[in-house]
Amino acid sequence: MNPTERRELIATYRDGLLNDVVPFWMRHCVDREHGGFTMSLDRDGTVIDTDKGVWQQCRFTWLLGELYNNVQPRNEWLALARHGIDFIDRHGFDPADGRMWFHLTRDGRPIRKRRYAFSESFAAIAYGEFAKATGEDEYARKAEACFRRFLDHNRNPQGVQPKFTDVRPTRGIGFPMITINTAQELRDSIDLPDADAIIDGAIEDIRRYHLKPDIQCVMETVALDGGLIDHFDGRTLNPGHAIEGAWFIMAEGRHRGDASLIRLGCEMLDWMWRRGWDQQYGGMLYFVDVNGLPVQEYWHDMKFWWPHNETIIATLMAYQLTGDAKYSDWHRQVHDWSYEHFPDTEHGEWYGYLHRDGRISVPLKGNLWKGPFHLPRMQLTCWRTLGNGLDM
Amino acid sequence: MNPTERRELIATYRDGLLNDVVPFWMRHCVDREHGGFTMSLDRDGTVIDTDKGVWQQCRFTWLLGELYNNVQPRNEWLALARHGIDFIDRHGFDPADGRMWFHLTRDGRPIRKRRYAFSESFAAIAYGEFAKATGEDEYARKAEACFRRFLDHNRNPQGVQPKFTDVRPTRGIGFPMITINTAQELRDSIDLPDADAIIDGAIEDIRRYHLKPDIQCVMETVALDGGLIDHFDGRTLNPGHAIEGAWFIMAEGRHRGDASLIRLGCEMLDWMWRRGWDQQYGGMLYFVDVNGLPVQEYWHDMKFWWPHNETIIATLMAYQLTGDAKYSDWHRQVHDWSYEHFPDTEHGEWYGYLHRDGRISVPLKGNLWKGPFHLPRMQLTCWRTLGNGLDM
Repeated sequence: MNPTERRELIATYRDGLLNDVVPFWMRHCVDREHGGFTMSLDRDGTVIDTDKGVWQQCRFTWLLGELYNNVQPRNEWLALARHGIDFIDRHGFDPADGRMWFHLTRDGRPIRKRRYAFSESFAAIAYGEFAKATGEDEYARKAEACFRRFLDHNRNPQGVQPKFTDVRPTRGIGFPMITINTAQELRDSIDLPDADAIIDGAIEDIRRYHLKPDIQCVMETVALDGGLIDHFDGRTLNPGHAIEGAWFIMAEGRHRGDASLIRLGCEMLDWMWRRGWDQQYGGMLYFVDVNGLPVQEYWHDMKFWWPHNETIIATLMAYQLTGDAKYSDWHRQVHDWSYEHFPDTEHGEWYGYLHRDGRISVPLKGNLWKGPFHLPRMQLTCWRTLGNGLDM
Repeated sequence: MNPTERRELIATYRDGLLNDVVPFWMRHCVDREHGGFTMSLDRDGTVIDTDKGVWQQCRFTWLLGELYNNVQPRNEWLALARHGIDFIDRHGFDPADGRMWFHLTRDGRPIRKRRYAFSESFAAIAYGEFAKATGEDEYARKAEACFRRFLDHNRNPQGVQPKFTDVRPTRGIGFPMITINTAQELRDSIDLPDADAIIDGAIEDIRRYHLKPDIQCVMETVALDGGLIDHFDGRTLNPGHAIEGAWFIMAEGRHRGDASLIRLGCEMLDWMWRRGWDQQYGGMLYFVDVNGLPVQEYWHDMKFWWPHNETIIATLMAYQLTGDAKYSDWHRQVHDWSYEHFPDTEHGEWYGYLHRDGRISVPLKGNLWKGPFHLPRMQLTCWRTLGNGLDM
């Protein structure tokens, strides 16, 4: 990566963030009548569903706080973060048990709560950035409380009927991954006191249970003891998800100056790039079977926006941390494929859902699952990674 | 449709059923060690997951009984139906509440029960055919008990945490549709006394709540009063599903000699053919939005085997019942598209999951959702429809 390429990449990420993605959402998703954000947008920003996903309320609020705290203290970002926080405060929580909802009506009435508790992790980072931006302790306390509830509920769910019997208990990589990232965010925003110990525990869980050096693979779902579950669900890999975990761990290594963590993250990336990169059409496959068997999930070979965001971050970070040209090659491959297929050159932002060959499956910009998170986080993270003065 | 075409179609359906599909499953799915059927098969019949879906245990057992009772009293079919019934008897039910499981291990330990109760409807028709085949009253009683439990649980679920709050209650077309078909099957197999009244009620529910003549549409999910729910889930149509419902109602009209029911079924077919038939690539789209907006479900534009099976039946039945050449044209279109894309000419049976343009997405023949049901039911139903002496 020569200086010109580096300058061009910085411009792509920074300008994409500040001139395209953030303005797209600020222009289209803010609900001035009922508060919060309507995130289900057609390609031109038209609202196609007024319901509000709690994940996206929290994630956009986090992003706004993150921009305010780390890019520039713009009043409009802080005001909009407060707009998000107010809606979460008013409508995000079930007073009956303190847990968070997953899906709300436009005016904040609850539609659905999930068995798991990921809304809480996204609320935690939103409150954390807002506490940092405002200096208001109340939000730091809320951030920590949400994070503790996220940990507690996922470790020991109370009051929910489990989806499965106890015949074949499993552990998923999502919980330790999100634990790492949430603790990292809260360490930065509210000085969470035991962040390092929590991160150590989550990394150890991933290492012990999900990493399989003998087959060079990061398993998404394993038995409680880490054993391979030779059924559809146990064999199904989510390479983009594991690669997201890889950069959380690389970032931890960078933060601590711990080369062994950087090696661990790079190894996860190496294994899952090889399993997830589509040799035929390019791009990252969504699901693949660990043994190359057919996958049960229908959308297994589609190209979703977010695994590409996460792979762009991970490959760039691996290159920055190791200087290994393999990673700048991979970064170039996934960056180019993504920028060739995902951006909507007419209305801005990215499409979310492509077919395997890169054709658009649906043109929408947002829904319960897609909002201003993975893409702007990628843009911000890559801009910051490239802008740190290292010769990329 | 001239006599030659008719003879060719009969041969296609009959020979496909008796020489391809039924032997494929008999050869590959019978578990002689633990009982029941392992239905998760790769394209060549290799078992790729030993778990057992309860729907498929029941559906194959139903098919075997149906063949024995209506095609030929072959001992091998009856013996295999008994093999299925024994497994369902031993492992299908949760002794704690009498409800059925959804997903079992190979040796019959429970993995998952669903909030809803469709396993019970498929068990009912399996028991019903087996009662008819053997004359053993015990199974007739079980058939009826399963059907009553299906009705009771879906009308008034007990002991399950609902997926959604009561803020936006909905009704789905699946319950009345399966009610009709199960009652029809049990009327035939065990002389279910109140079948006609139950069917009347279910058809009335579909007519009152799901049919929208003003927009010429059958809604999959509506408000309790039948109102359109202008959100992703409420706008999402499943044309192949509605068309399956259409032929259940046409079949009822044929059975009763009731022209108004035949008209109703044809109308449902007319509306949903126009919404579901893919003008660009041919075949039936899986999901479409009632207003043409983007759909949230990722696999919306894939071509699944079963909507094609149901549309082949419905168009043929409509033609048989009305003589309208439009229906024989549609039947020819969907039949030809299906037979061009779904059959595995090397290993037999059909692929289940194609991309929009007809390319194969996964080559598997069975999983928790796909087993010997929609395809052989289509073959049998169309063969019987064509073989009734009418000039098709």
